[in-house]
Amino acid sequence: MTDVFALDPQLERDTLPACDFALSTVRLMNDARYPWLIVVPRRVGASEVIDLSSDDRHRLLDETTRVAEALRSLCKPKKLNIAAIGNIVTQLHVHVVARFADDAAWPRPVWGIGTAVPYSDATASAFIASFLRALGGRP
Amino acid sequence: MTDVFALDPQLERDTLPACDFALSTVRLMNDARYPWLIVVPRRVGASEVIDLSSDDRHRLLDETTRVAEALRSLCKPKKLNIAAIGNIVTQLHVHVVARFADDAAWPRPVWGIGTAVPYSDATASAFIASFLRALGGRP
Repeated sequence: MTDVFALDPQLERDTLPACDFALSTVRLMNDARYPWLIVVPRRVGASEVIDLSSDDRHRLLDETTRVAEALRSLCKPKKLNIAAIGNIVTQLHVHVVARFADDAAWPRPVWGIGTAVPYSDATASAFIASFLRALGGRP
Repeated sequence: MTDVFALDPQLERDTLPACDFALSTVRLMNDARYPWLIVVPRRVGASEVIDLSSDDRHRLLDETTRVAEALRSLCKPKKLNIAAIGNIVTQLHVHVVARFADDAAWPRPVWGIGTAVPYSDATASAFIASFLRALGGRP
């Protein structure tokens, strides 16, 4: 195992870069069915939230909170879903999904329902720009 | 809205009491297919993790971490799933589920898969006693 952090290849394929916090890199899930971000702490080998040091765990919570607040402010969802699952991609990552009563999976969780609908480049860029504005200032 | 915390009636029906922390009450999901605990902060009206004060949010993380560490120590799962979903029961609650490659839903998340298999009273009591021993000392 190297000591240089690298994003898991499947996360790399399935997501688009949004921003970087002190600990985590934030990616947009490339699935236009749901406003859906992924928060990935840059810690080599971490798979579980409880693998992190207490300081890192709290920092991950703070960064996830900022993502969730920005997503709520931007999208006004009915509910936020925040989850560390990782049954398939074991690199630690936290899902933050804005959910609506008329979305493709409601009221079920989003995982394993149907097929991702990729964004157009323009729509992804516009969404990320709006998200960064909602985050406010530098991450 | 009253200012006295009460567990959501569906959570009350679906779970069994395990222990209480300073902030949260911990319940065993009454579904013997998965070792599955629910951490419910006793804050009236909270629905989202980001509705909590920063102090409460960090306390919830610490209490969830203790539950997850005890569950991992007790069950030696392949993966932990930790999630705040709440699309159906909106009272804020965090799922902590021990997952195995041969469980009923793997690798999918557990929500909405099949039907819960209730514990016998004796099996539930034994599981909760083992969980409390794994927690170590008083919660």
